[in-house]
Amino acid sequence: MKLTMQLGVRSYDIIIKRGSLGRMNQLVHLDRKVLVVTDSGVPVQYVQQAAAQCAHPYIVTVPQGEDSKSLKVWQQLLHTMLEKGFGRGDAVMAVGGGVVGDLAGFAAASYMRGIDFINLPTTTLAQIDSSIGGKTAINFENTKNIVGAFWQPRLVIVDPDVLSTLPPRHFAAGLAEAVKAGLLADSELFRLFEEEDYNERIEEVIYRSLIVKKNIVERDENEKGDRAALNLGHTIGHGIESVSSLHGYRALYHGECVALGMLPMIEDKKLATRLRKVYRRLGLPARVNYDRQAVVEAMRHDKKAQAGSITVVKIPQLAQFRLDKVPFEEVAALVLGTAREIQPRKKEQQE
Amino acid sequence: MKLTMQLGVRSYDIIIKRGSLGRMNQLVHLDRKVLVVTDSGVPVQYVQQAAAQCAHPYIVTVPQGEDSKSLKVWQQLLHTMLEKGFGRGDAVMAVGGGVVGDLAGFAAASYMRGIDFINLPTTTLAQIDSSIGGKTAINFENTKNIVGAFWQPRLVIVDPDVLSTLPPRHFAAGLAEAVKAGLLADSELFRLFEEEDYNERIEEVIYRSLIVKKNIVERDENEKGDRAALNLGHTIGHGIESVSSLHGYRALYHGECVALGMLPMIEDKKLATRLRKVYRRLGLPARVNYDRQAVVEAMRHDKKAQAGSITVVKIPQLAQFRLDKVPFEEVAALVLGTAREIQPRKKEQQE
Repeated sequence: MKLTMQLGVRSYDIIIKRGSLGRMNQLVHLDRKVLVVTDSGVPVQYVQQAAAQCAHPYIVTVPQGEDSKSLKVWQQLLHTMLEKGFGRGDAVMAVGGGVVGDLAGFAAASYMRGIDFINLPTTTLAQIDSSIGGKTAINFENTKNIVGAFWQPRLVIVDPDVLSTLPPRHFAAGLAEAVKAGLLADSELFRLFEEEDYNERIEEVIYRSLIVKKNIVERDENEKGDRAALNLGHTIGHGIESVSSLHGYRALYHGECVALGMLPMIEDKKLATRLRKVYRRLGLPARVNYDRQAVVEAMRHDKKAQAGSITVVKIPQLAQFRLDKVPFEEVAALVLGTAREIQPRKKEQQE
Repeated sequence: MKLTMQLGVRSYDIIIKRGSLGRMNQLVHLDRKVLVVTDSGVPVQYVQQAAAQCAHPYIVTVPQGEDSKSLKVWQQLLHTMLEKGFGRGDAVMAVGGGVVGDLAGFAAASYMRGIDFINLPTTTLAQIDSSIGGKTAINFENTKNIVGAFWQPRLVIVDPDVLSTLPPRHFAAGLAEAVKAGLLADSELFRLFEEEDYNERIEEVIYRSLIVKKNIVERDENEKGDRAALNLGHTIGHGIESVSSLHGYRALYHGECVALGMLPMIEDKKLATRLRKVYRRLGLPARVNYDRQAVVEAMRHDKKAQAGSITVVKIPQLAQFRLDKVPFEEVAALVLGTAREIQPRKKEQQE
């Protein structure tokens, strides 16, 4: 399966195919210097398989985790490219999850004002979510993604086979973004999660999710309008994520937080019930007894909320969405209100 | 006079008008946070006049000179924006020459993946040359402009009145880029330098130069083809500049080096003679007894020459250009050949 992102001179393809990692050199010109960026959590065989197809690969392995999205690590990548004499015709390749993609993408975007970026996402989340949209970024002074660029990749290679080595909970968390795509604009995809073997049909799950995102992004390359719909679940999700991260290894994953953050945005009660059922089927948390007040406080300090009002994405019914600009306190009430509704059911608390 | 750069969603205007600095707020929305970036060489009255028109100005004055185009200074700008709570709707304004424009432009390009950039160039060179094209960059590990982005400004305000405080040699050096524009594509502009009062007609000089650059850039936003024509004189010019910079305060200016670098590219001998005459009229060096061998060595180490061949821009006759991909040694011969031709005339040596 192939998707072409139509962005004028910045158009590019996304290849979704089992085994595509093994034949990248048939898909993109690799007879050049390639900075292969990966992290310590990515199985080394994937990195070696990718590098082996490049004429002049330079592998840089950064520590796994968000801390690698730093100015310091980004400078190390620039340093390596400069030292190895990378020119405008050379390339950066990401082999990893969202962190690696964001970091390597920004290095590609900023070296010589932009060189080719090839993205090979290796997590469900990255394959579904961060392989489209051209967002690259690093963190700075404790603020996530504050420094970065919109930089479209030359090619994205999605090989679902690499997901087989992901821990099951990590695999499931990434699917939250696919559920999001279904809720926003694809009722067939949503029903697939309700009734079908989504593991077996993972190529289709990824493809359909990307189509939803592609349609929204192509209408809005630089995030001025409808693209905000992709933030469904993220406003509250980020709040949950900040609070949850205080719990260390028991913290919720990003996708799990987004899943929880989407629930209060579903206006149709029957759909909310169906959604919880999907979460249970996928192994996503359907109810978590987090500290609602702390979540509200975390959201209050989020940069997007500072203007007093906040744009949230609501789902009136399946495959429809509406952007609402509302006072912050209204979102806070959604969080706190939901708390009252679910607190009695402590047994379903996430691990 | 107004020029509109047609770049799709990234289109923007360039206003060329005496006194426009004083009425910027009629031209662009300044009722927001604005990071006003300037350097210690810019007359403080210009900065104050610009800042006074912004609702929430934050002035950052960096040291004058190329050293400010560093990761460190760029980080300081990002830090200030983050600390002051700059959001996507806020802006960065450059008040200065090319260094300030490149630095501030890259800060605008990379903060939150790009916020509005307003450019108010205060030197002849910046007004003519760096206000168009969307190039932003900083230096890294002794390599010029190696880290940066293409980022189009929201508005460029060219007020020729601010040139009155420039030292005459600095003023003249910037005109080399206008002469370049004439050579490439505007014989009227070239004749204006031969016969007219170019000081009196500076608005027209700037306007015509920008038109030439605009036509070339719009055909080629990301520097893949014809845009290379704008490098006329720069290959050899950069070589001269590196060698000249070793002479400290007696070093040649960038524009002076470009002027010298253009001479060997003129294929019509009569035109070369006319060009030297224009240089003398403008106070630009027409002949300099620099160390030709050292210049060749500096060029050899330039990143663009590393592939063995090099693209040079030649002028077969006035207002025509040709891109030639030639072996490096051919360009070297041009430099060395010219040396033999001019060495006897030591009296005209530039200070």
